[in-house]
Amino acid sequence: MLIERGATKGLTIWEDAEAMIAKARRDDVPIIWDRLNAQRPACSFCKTGLTCKKCVMGPCRIKADGKRNRGVCGADADLTVARNFGRFVAAGSASHSDHGRDLLETLAAIGEGKTTDYAIRDEAKLARICEEVGIATAGLDVRAQAAALADKLHTDFGTRGKGLSFLARVPKARRELWEKLGITPRGIDREVVEMMHRTHMGVDSDAVSLCLHAARTALSDGWGGSMIATELSDIIFGTPTPRQATVNLGVLKADQVNILVHGHSPIVSEMIVAAAKDEELLAKAKAAGAAGINLAGLCCTGNEVLMRKGIPMAGNHLMTELAIITGAADCMVVDYQCIMPSLVRVASCYQTRFVSTSDKAHFTGATHVEFNYANAKEQAKKVVALAIEAFTKRDPHKVEIPGTPVGMLTGFSNEAILGALGGTPAPLLDAIKSGAVRGAAAIVGCNNPRLKHDYCHVNLAKELIKRDVLVLITGCATVAMGKAGLLVPEAADLAGPGLSGVCKALGIPPVLHVGSCVDNSRIIQLCAVLANALGVDISALPVAASAPEWYSEKAAAIGLYAVASGVATHLGIPPHITGSEAVTKLALSGLEDVVGAHFWVEPDPFKAAQLMDARISQKRLALGLSK
Amino acid sequence: MLIERGATKGLTIWEDAEAMIAKARRDDVPIIWDRLNAQRPACSFCKTGLTCKKCVMGPCRIKADGKRNRGVCGADADLTVARNFGRFVAAGSASHSDHGRDLLETLAAIGEGKTTDYAIRDEAKLARICEEVGIATAGLDVRAQAAALADKLHTDFGTRGKGLSFLARVPKARRELWEKLGITPRGIDREVVEMMHRTHMGVDSDAVSLCLHAARTALSDGWGGSMIATELSDIIFGTPTPRQATVNLGVLKADQVNILVHGHSPIVSEMIVAAAKDEELLAKAKAAGAAGINLAGLCCTGNEVLMRKGIPMAGNHLMTELAIITGAADCMVVDYQCIMPSLVRVASCYQTRFVSTSDKAHFTGATHVEFNYANAKEQAKKVVALAIEAFTKRDPHKVEIPGTPVGMLTGFSNEAILGALGGTPAPLLDAIKSGAVRGAAAIVGCNNPRLKHDYCHVNLAKELIKRDVLVLITGCATVAMGKAGLLVPEAADLAGPGLSGVCKALGIPPVLHVGSCVDNSRIIQLCAVLANALGVDISALPVAASAPEWYSEKAAAIGLYAVASGVATHLGIPPHITGSEAVTKLALSGLEDVVGAHFWVEPDPFKAAQLMDARISQKRLALGLSK
Repeated sequence: MLIERGATKGLTIWEDAEAMIAKARRDDVPIIWDRLNAQRPACSFCKTGLTCKKCVMGPCRIKADGKRNRGVCGADADLTVARNFGRFVAAGSASHSDHGRDLLETLAAIGEGKTTDYAIRDEAKLARICEEVGIATAGLDVRAQAAALADKLHTDFGTRGKGLSFLARVPKARRELWEKLGITPRGIDREVVEMMHRTHMGVDSDAVSLCLHAARTALSDGWGGSMIATELSDIIFGTPTPRQATVNLGVLKADQVNILVHGHSPIVSEMIVAAAKDEELLAKAKAAGAAGINLAGLCCTGNEVLMRKGIPMAGNHLMTELAIITGAADCMVVDYQCIMPSLVRVASCYQTRFVSTSDKAHFTGATHVEFNYANAKEQAKKVVALAIEAFTKRDPHKVEIPGTPVGMLTGFSNEAILGALGGTPAPLLDAIKSGAVRGAAAIVGCNNPRLKHDYCHVNLAKELIKRDVLVLITGCATVAMGKAGLLVPEAADLAGPGLSGVCKALGIPPVLHVGSCVDNSRIIQLCAVLANALGVDISALPVAASAPEWYSEKAAAIGLYAVASGVATHLGIPPHITGSEAVTKLALSGLEDVVGAHFWVEPDPFKAAQLMDARISQKRLALGLSK
Repeated sequence: MLIERGATKGLTIWEDAEAMIAKARRDDVPIIWDRLNAQRPACSFCKTGLTCKKCVMGPCRIKADGKRNRGVCGADADLTVARNFGRFVAAGSASHSDHGRDLLETLAAIGEGKTTDYAIRDEAKLARICEEVGIATAGLDVRAQAAALADKLHTDFGTRGKGLSFLARVPKARRELWEKLGITPRGIDREVVEMMHRTHMGVDSDAVSLCLHAARTALSDGWGGSMIATELSDIIFGTPTPRQATVNLGVLKADQVNILVHGHSPIVSEMIVAAAKDEELLAKAKAAGAAGINLAGLCCTGNEVLMRKGIPMAGNHLMTELAIITGAADCMVVDYQCIMPSLVRVASCYQTRFVSTSDKAHFTGATHVEFNYANAKEQAKKVVALAIEAFTKRDPHKVEIPGTPVGMLTGFSNEAILGALGGTPAPLLDAIKSGAVRGAAAIVGCNNPRLKHDYCHVNLAKELIKRDVLVLITGCATVAMGKAGLLVPEAADLAGPGLSGVCKALGIPPVLHVGSCVDNSRIIQLCAVLANALGVDISALPVAASAPEWYSEKAAAIGLYAVASGVATHLGIPPHITGSEAVTKLALSGLEDVVGAHFWVEPDPFKAAQLMDARISQKRLALGLSK
């Protein structure tokens, strides 16, 4: 649901958020909705993708039907939009992939014996992935396997053009289609760099050509950078298994030192989790008057430690400022991505110590504690000590912790899902064939203040499960579904009779939490497993995806790799492409003929559910199944 | 000299250009100055770097002192400008580096025996570079050397973090400074990808941190991608040696089939040069009524075949449309970069066949003839045949070729310069020490319709040589200097007495053409050679650089790697950074304390010459030399 310009009410569906928005007003702390109102109306050229500032002959603003119908270089509306969109997707792919690289470098450090702070927690998965990518593990110890796998995956980031290791997972028909279209990703970094090259003035000057390369760039994320990030996170920190946890701002504790972990990578947060259990630090916290040290997650770093450790979740994107406004957050420790620069200012209004940890993500005004392989455990202890110190400065009169934590079940990695099914997808396929489970949908991604907070997430999920569609979620959707009570087995009662029965038989919720936003790679991998088992292309499956409240370039990359992999994808609002009829048409329908899937744009979750449902019906009929 | 808004006269200093601008008006063909006027006034937010469209919470426009002082995410003016500038530089670096990759893949194809169309033309340089980067050539034949070098340089594009092969060329003091600042480039693609990651919402949120990474990204271009492009172009196509050529639109011939090569890479254009000599095609041209097949260059592809083959130059960036407007261009064959999308439309007003050749640079409406290792010779013949066919459709009444070709001397690779000096830089250093040559300046880069065409180039060069400053030029500056008669030995008479004497003794012009825009790597390498010979850092040398009429993201990357390498650099107009006082101050002075060099922004070439001259005097005094 779109938020009207100037609106100061009805911004969220949650009481905990409403309470903190009200407290922000009382505390006179500007928050994201205030900045959105100040920025409205937005520039219509920028919003529709029609500005170009890629050289100093300009900047230019294109108006398809006016005297400004071409930029100084001669680019028209289609080209301008396509170039901008290309960079938008490239930035998203780059982000996931550079995150994957960090995991890869950690794996290499383990292999080379350069770290004792990090180790291999899932040796069986390490061996399995080694064998999958062609490394014979016989005679190799764990460290040697780690080193060999790091070597192999490093070539995926390189440029020798031999293709990505995990492309073998893709159904043959899909790989052949990509080959035919010339969009098989060659190297993870290469596609991003080539997109930056193509979008320089006077390089790729055809909108369709740029859009195809945008698809290739996105695929290098989905089947490359993101997939590497997921698989290596599992190997290093453990493959998630189902576990209980809790969610909403109520997970903060008035009598404890509260540390929020925020960002996207498990590399720092796992160390914070360990340091928070340190006896010496616990004693220090008690000496400071705290009953203990309480950790809570935000965004995808939160998802990472939720999936593997059951650390409670304080909130999603639009809750990150509000978590500080409770007055109970003694430290926010961040790695990178989706960390609003405003958080430093919000933190400065309270005792909250804002700590950055990565050289690639400094925040003006923050305390920087750089983490690396060799010092991570020690640095994590320093951060916890800073949090304890901040706790001593907390003003109890400023503390208000709204809400009561809601329970949820998390940890549904593909290994966990297939494990629960007895090691094969056959029972799931049988349920799909019988119509008990009519299909599956992914609901992923962000919040966006232009949309009523979590309204689309929750309503879309409810509508889909009602229609016997199994829902898989990642990222910020997690918190929404958790708070709505959809991540517990009892939520099966909200599902249609078929799905409800399956969930009850297995003791699982109708909405499964599969991870962080890089973990959308788990979902496309699962699609590939199902398609391969059925002997069809991914585009033939009764599945769909949605990023109903997306905001980021990463989400655009995810959406595009989903579509390019054959999964039709819903977006709550469009990217900045509507200034080009050609690019918009390609996205909304034309891609169907090219890659067998396309985008929908629809802010209303009820209508979106109908679109996704119709798609699933259509795919079921095409497979010879009931509607 | 800045062009006033709405101006239709005084756009260029050249008669050939004036004549074709007038003909464009008569032929009713819109050209770049028309589009510039239509785009003026430009958006002040975009122009100063204060717009952000990197997510769909926005777009945002920041005004440092208004209610819009922060974006929806909380980014202020400094951060917004720094993020935009980071991407600007990343795109420039990506372009050069992706161009370098193409040469590298060609080298690999030669090594692997996958091509007979391309071969090693400078075997001595191949062996020399192999030895330089640690490959023992004993017992390796040419193909094996090519393969080994390709393997080695491919790792520079990868991500293992062992540093770039050519960094050993950098003076030790400079390398230590980079290490201290954390800006030593690790991998060519990596820095671009990391910049795209850092500039995603919620990653690097500190303007200084972003600017430092921009420097690292630019250095990965200068000492990485560009340097690889240069060195491999020499190895594959021959290292340039001094040779005669001609320049301006008068190089087109009314009675011949005229083919213009445009873009940046020698990979396609070298094949076109060969095909234009093909007996069968020459016969075909004669049968079609042409006296022959005439090739002429534009922009940097022009520079590549000018340096190595003496192919005449028709023009620089602002001449590319005008070359078609002569009515005598039968074919324009392009590879990539700086090829205005408008050219397809301009070509369609005449018989000109517009042919694109690279998968990464399609042009809507163009004829696409894809070149690869295996088919290049054949494809080149096809292109020449298309040109002959177009010639038959030429309308003689539409033909007007202005100007008389001006002679020039080209081909001053570092090997040629050092060769002329007897193999060592000592004679040049002696001339500098004596004050005969007070210093050296590079004048590089583009044209920009916001600046009077070539006015700054020519006047800046004249002012500098008058002051006994040796000038090295690349890119679009080449055509300007050539047309102005500065690239002949006789131009020594325009130089000060010291420089004049040295030029006359050596028989060289006071302005030396060293190549295309990737060949700015030759200039920084020469700086390193001189600094190493003197045992000082590059920043201690009496040198400066200028991109007086720059327009492109590549030029920004070049400027930044020059400054980060220690060479103070002049720009005719600023990049889109002036919305941030912090970033602007850093560029214009603050960088001096960080990397020992900074930018000047000055549209007046006479004032720019004074600034560069003062810098050279200051550096001379610091070295204990006369002013």
